[in-house]
Amino acid sequence: MAKRKPKVMRPKALPPRGFRDYFGADVQARANMLGKISDIYHAYGFDPLETPAVETVEALGKFLPDVDRPNDGVFAWQDEDESWLALRYDLTAPLARVYAQFRNDLPTPYRRYAVGPVWRNEKPGPGRFRQFYQCDADTVGTPTVAADAEICMMLSDALEAAGIARNDYIVRVNNRKVLNGVMEVAGVLDPSDPTKFESQRGIVLRAIDKLDRLGLTGVMQLLGEQRVDESGDITRGANLSMSQAEIIHDFLDAKQATNEKTLSSLRNVVGNSAVGLEGVSELEQISETMSAQDYGSERFNLDPTVVRGLGYYTGPVYEAELTFDIIDEKGAIRQFGSVAGGGRYDDLVKRFTGQAVPATGVSIGVDRLRAALAARGKAETTAKGPVVITVMDRERMGDYQAMVAELRGAGIRAEVYLGNPKNFGNQLKYADARNAPVAVIEGGDEHEKGVVQIKDLALGKALATNITSNEEWKSQPAQMEIKRGDLVTQVRKMMGRANGE
Amino acid sequence: MAKRKPKVMRPKALPPRGFRDYFGADVQARANMLGKISDIYHAYGFDPLETPAVETVEALGKFLPDVDRPNDGVFAWQDEDESWLALRYDLTAPLARVYAQFRNDLPTPYRRYAVGPVWRNEKPGPGRFRQFYQCDADTVGTPTVAADAEICMMLSDALEAAGIARNDYIVRVNNRKVLNGVMEVAGVLDPSDPTKFESQRGIVLRAIDKLDRLGLTGVMQLLGEQRVDESGDITRGANLSMSQAEIIHDFLDAKQATNEKTLSSLRNVVGNSAVGLEGVSELEQISETMSAQDYGSERFNLDPTVVRGLGYYTGPVYEAELTFDIIDEKGAIRQFGSVAGGGRYDDLVKRFTGQAVPATGVSIGVDRLRAALAARGKAETTAKGPVVITVMDRERMGDYQAMVAELRGAGIRAEVYLGNPKNFGNQLKYADARNAPVAVIEGGDEHEKGVVQIKDLALGKALATNITSNEEWKSQPAQMEIKRGDLVTQVRKMMGRANGE
Repeated sequence: MAKRKPKVMRPKALPPRGFRDYFGADVQARANMLGKISDIYHAYGFDPLETPAVETVEALGKFLPDVDRPNDGVFAWQDEDESWLALRYDLTAPLARVYAQFRNDLPTPYRRYAVGPVWRNEKPGPGRFRQFYQCDADTVGTPTVAADAEICMMLSDALEAAGIARNDYIVRVNNRKVLNGVMEVAGVLDPSDPTKFESQRGIVLRAIDKLDRLGLTGVMQLLGEQRVDESGDITRGANLSMSQAEIIHDFLDAKQATNEKTLSSLRNVVGNSAVGLEGVSELEQISETMSAQDYGSERFNLDPTVVRGLGYYTGPVYEAELTFDIIDEKGAIRQFGSVAGGGRYDDLVKRFTGQAVPATGVSIGVDRLRAALAARGKAETTAKGPVVITVMDRERMGDYQAMVAELRGAGIRAEVYLGNPKNFGNQLKYADARNAPVAVIEGGDEHEKGVVQIKDLALGKALATNITSNEEWKSQPAQMEIKRGDLVTQVRKMMGRANGE
Repeated sequence: MAKRKPKVMRPKALPPRGFRDYFGADVQARANMLGKISDIYHAYGFDPLETPAVETVEALGKFLPDVDRPNDGVFAWQDEDESWLALRYDLTAPLARVYAQFRNDLPTPYRRYAVGPVWRNEKPGPGRFRQFYQCDADTVGTPTVAADAEICMMLSDALEAAGIARNDYIVRVNNRKVLNGVMEVAGVLDPSDPTKFESQRGIVLRAIDKLDRLGLTGVMQLLGEQRVDESGDITRGANLSMSQAEIIHDFLDAKQATNEKTLSSLRNVVGNSAVGLEGVSELEQISETMSAQDYGSERFNLDPTVVRGLGYYTGPVYEAELTFDIIDEKGAIRQFGSVAGGGRYDDLVKRFTGQAVPATGVSIGVDRLRAALAARGKAETTAKGPVVITVMDRERMGDYQAMVAELRGAGIRAEVYLGNPKNFGNQLKYADARNAPVAVIEGGDEHEKGVVQIKDLALGKALATNITSNEEWKSQPAQMEIKRGDLVTQVRKMMGRANGE
């Protein structure tokens, strides 16, 4: 019997559940996209801010430090001095901490943008990761809706800079104050006693928040006595009267063909409610500001069905939606949907200082935007590889190094093959795997004659997959002998023809 | 007696101990620097890789999952499925995990670069943070020292691209194998039984590692019986005989005026040791490769005193040192010192797969390099602010928005003042705080006449601080009235004169 070797315990070569790696082309495409968006933010006068990945649980604020393990939704742990630390779950909570900490040194208003990963301790699933990027811009310290309008225009510019075409997206704007007005008119909000009807209002708000999923009919059921879902489960409703529910219905149904008409139907719905009229007037100012700068209905509209986050925000809310169709994972055709959202929030800094600080901002979902660009065929998925100098004579490494130095000096990405050079076929396979446009070959004979061979790998691939029918291009040689002195010129020419230059 | 208000508990507006925020100019300057370094890595054929911030403690490998809290040096916590997770402490451990996981899909050799924060659960101190950036490049899967030479040349190019001048730095190279040869000759390493003399060798290695701090004399004491430090504390030595210690001494003292001479003295020291001669021959190949590409002694030398990390590496080790003087925190003049280091390590992937995978790589200390650029006056510490359009008539916001849009369209960073416009002085204070080059003013009168005022804030600042003695410049008006239609042209001109254009 063969002896059994003792089993060695080895670590698994895997990232934790819900985490992933990003390689070459992905890393660069995301960096390029974020660079273009940041340039827009910067041109608008926003300043970059980078906060650490780690904050105190206390500063993040969603969690109480007195429970044993405050890890509900965040990754948290106890520091050596017993305080609880956590990975940030968004970029807004750290902004509130920074503004409270440095408010005497920062300009007012403070416009800042931030790009970086955030972490959620949630159950991972297909396409759902526990680390992902956000790209935010916020204006802190001013109540003017000019700041909200500015963010909406900037969002539009940012999406176009990233590669989303005009007419492929729309920035939709709503206002929490209008909803409050509607609540007043419907008799579920008493301005003189905001605590009254609180639980009923909560049900109304949650019902509206489900508009996307349940449609107007489902929401209406939840405004009434109850809703029975397909499985027979019963959700208790807000018990509004028919006429009360009508008012909410009219609000959600107030969108018209033009912003002017939408404003007038909203004005009808809010009646004499002061907060409601203030909200409509804010929407009117935003609309006027944007129209005056030629952000017309092809880029922006007022839309009372923008309800996401109405519970969190205090004034205008906005959302960027991509309007083109995609085929989803179930094979159904649907609109791509939201890639960015934001609005006005006035209470985040107050937690620290006791003083309300008005703020408004937007967050772009970086991975969703990348997916959208891919769906529109605008995401580079394959990295352009370097020119690969193959190694024929191991002892002439210096000659090959000189070639890459020349190519790099001319701005051409290039490398010497550094694997085992014995099997030349492996070198060409390597060059293919690297997606190299050109391979350079210089054996002893060539060296003596002062020539090198250059091989058009892009052409070879194109011919192999029949993606070209350009006869002229086909007739070009896939490999040619050139003078050593012409290396840079000829490689550039060969790379150019693959790009149709 | 006045009633006391109940005290509200508010969270502290502070980041956790050892963490910090980076604002405007800092964020951009670092991003620019990392962009330039990445461009060099990329031109050399290296591909970007981004791994998550979080790894399993098992994969990171320094820590055992069976202890209660494996947080020695890392931030670690238990996931819901009981496995231990941790923030990565460097970029090399995740690379080893990725290479083991994807080795069948990655090209061989695999050249990758990575840029990102790493975390250390260490006691913070002045200038010592628990989150900092690293910028690494590694070649995995090839034993050839051509890969080591390539990394050294690339490191040199990267430092120059980042802004370190030729002659302000030197890449120093040593080889662990040479040291092993020296150990053999000194009789503390027996190639036929590597476990023999292990503890004695450990003392020698630790002694050599302290060369920077103790000097050659201190190291020699540790090679002998014992070393007594200033406080009287006794450290037990390796108990080498005089002649054994001499051999180590000769190694550390082997550096000569030229690389050729250094090689020949190293060859003398290692005598007939096979591993030692192999090490010297590797250094010779690196030296020849680099010299052939004109990386001469002004950029690179062989230096046996490069000992940092000799315990970790298995072949060539390299370090980039900045050679200019700075005044340190104690007021003493000293060399700036190391900003990057690396070498060959062959065992990291083996932990996962059981097979040794040769690898070599370098890590640039991003914050130290930024500090070095600052010391050389090459770090932009003040961000260029946007042109600020002041608000004289609140109801003409649209006119001001149109101005910023025009300026941005012409590539000029610009913003409308969005604070309370009532106090005009505050608007100019704001523009100053933003480091705005130009402020634009358009009141009702100007509007009617079709003109605007533009104010040169850079000039104003310069005059105030007397930093200019250029009479011609001084004589230029700090504020001028221009036609509204000339806004872009005139603002650009005004910004240009501040830049001496």
